[in-house]
Amino acid sequence: MAAKTQTTALFLCLLICISAVYGHKTRSRRPCKELVFFFHDVLYQGNNRNNATAVIVASPQWGNKTAMAKPFNFGDLVVFDDPITLDNNLHSPPVGRAQGTYFYDQWSIYGAWLGFSFLFNSTDYVGTLNFAGADPLINKTRDISVIGGTGDFFMARGVATVSTDAFEGDVYFRLRVDIRLYECW
Amino acid sequence: MAAKTQTTALFLCLLICISAVYGHKTRSRRPCKELVFFFHDVLYQGNNRNNATAVIVASPQWGNKTAMAKPFNFGDLVVFDDPITLDNNLHSPPVGRAQGTYFYDQWSIYGAWLGFSFLFNSTDYVGTLNFAGADPLINKTRDISVIGGTGDFFMARGVATVSTDAFEGDVYFRLRVDIRLYECW
Amino acid sequence: MAAKTQTTALFLCLLICISAVYGHKTRSRRPCKELVFFFHDVLYQGNNRNNATAVIVASPQWGNKTAMAKPFNFGDLVVFDDPITLDNNLHSPPVGRAQGTYFYDQWSIYGAWLGFSFLFNSTDYVGTLNFAGADPLINKTRDISVIGGTGDFFMARGVATVSTDAFEGDVYFRLRVDIRLYECW
Repeated sequence: MAAKTQTTALFLCLLICISAVYGHKTRSRRPCKELVFFFHDVLYQGNNRNNATAVIVASPQWGNKTAMAKPFNFGDLVVFDDPITLDNNLHSPPVGRAQGTYFYDQWSIYGAWLGFSFLFNSTDYVGTLNFAGADPLINKTRDISVIGGTGDFFMARGVATVSTDAFEGDVYFRLRVDIRLYECW
Repeated sequence: MAAKTQTTALFLCLLICISAVYGHKTRSRRPCKELVFFFHDVLYQGNNRNNATAVIVASPQWGNKTAMAKPFNFGDLVVFDDPITLDNNLHSPPVGRAQGTYFYDQWSIYGAWLGFSFLFNSTDYVGTLNFAGADPLINKTRDISVIGGTGDFFMARGVATVSTDAFEGDVYFRLRVDIRLYECW
Repeated sequence: MAAKTQTTALFLCLLICISAVYGHKTRSRRPCKELVFFFHDVLYQGNNRNNATAVIVASPQWGNKTAMAKPFNFGDLVVFDDPITLDNNLHSPPVGRAQGTYFYDQWSIYGAWLGFSFLFNSTDYVGTLNFAGADPLINKTRDISVIGGTGDFFMARGVATVSTDAFEGDVYFRLRVDIRLYECW
């Protein structure tokens, strides 16, 4: 082996070393997976049990379980089982279920906290993604955390950008969720 | 140093480099720690406050706090403080407490969402493990996320496989939890 | 290039390689970011809606929404929207909001479970930190998990040490939170 070749290889190796160490410390902000879904929430109001997907189960002293508390729904806690679709049509074939809770936790403006999972069991995906984070509804987009995953999403972490795609009063809303995973296993 | 030795060392170094970079990208699916526990949940039904470990604190309009809502318990939210044991015997000496909440969030079948911690303070372990995820009870095993840990489980992440080891109606159930950590610090 | 220089470079490279691999496996327990905040919780008791920041929304059968359940508040679930300050003065200018839930989940002693976010939108920080974990109040300090973050705290993970800085009965408490992030992106 010529000395020159050896020197070149050595520099190459040093370069890889440094990039490995540096890469480990800084991590990549380029997603390893990107997904977009919509989910559809129809709130139970006392007379729509057949098509409701969500129900108020807890509320402040001045609230009740068939209508949001005034003002700003503060203290209302909802359990939901919403269909997930690939587009913004409520009647598209669901590709999974969004299940969990949201509760309104801002006194002076609309804002909520989300703790829920996406459950997939289709030809595309089998597994779950778990989410938690704040949803200050006044903002056009809100970032929450992907805190874990199972199955096809084993050990996933990332950020999900939530936006309200449509709503009708307190009764129906549709969320668009742009999921970007930065840890894929 | 002979040129041959130097060349060998150089190749070795390149190999380590590449494996380090590759290893960083793919991560290992071999657990760094495996644990199995059981926990025992006795639901409060209005007359068993002495031996109950869990209580319904929220329910839909048609529910109440001493019996599960029909159908499928949908909307019932339970707070629990359950003993953890190493085997499936409720009367074994507890090694910790499982504390948190589960709520039923499926309209058309039994399914829940879990947010809880394991609290250990024994000769074996001191610290906590935090869990979140969906628990579709119809499945024999369900995977949830280990989203963090403290103390002996500092910064842990992993997957916990939950299975119903036994149950008696809505009153008692025993969960087996197979914990596999893939991030150990 | 002299053979001696080359040999030195080779050893250096090997050293970096090994430290990179080793560093990847063991991870660093030195925080990449440290933060200290206080947050202030004033519980709604039926007559203080103007200055309350938190409200009981769920409770066991023997509880209600204007006072904590006896004993040990077990089963009370609170939704909160608390100001965050840099020092222990309730009247200091808030630098963000702590929003989420805590619920008491110990039958025989004071203990709670926390699921909440810090929301920052100031000159110092824009973004959120998400927390989950057990808060056994009997302990002077309690460790919970930082399970994710967004914005300036993109993908953050860590441990937050919570301590009760002051309290007045069930009505007011002030938590000090020492946040140590071990994953910074």
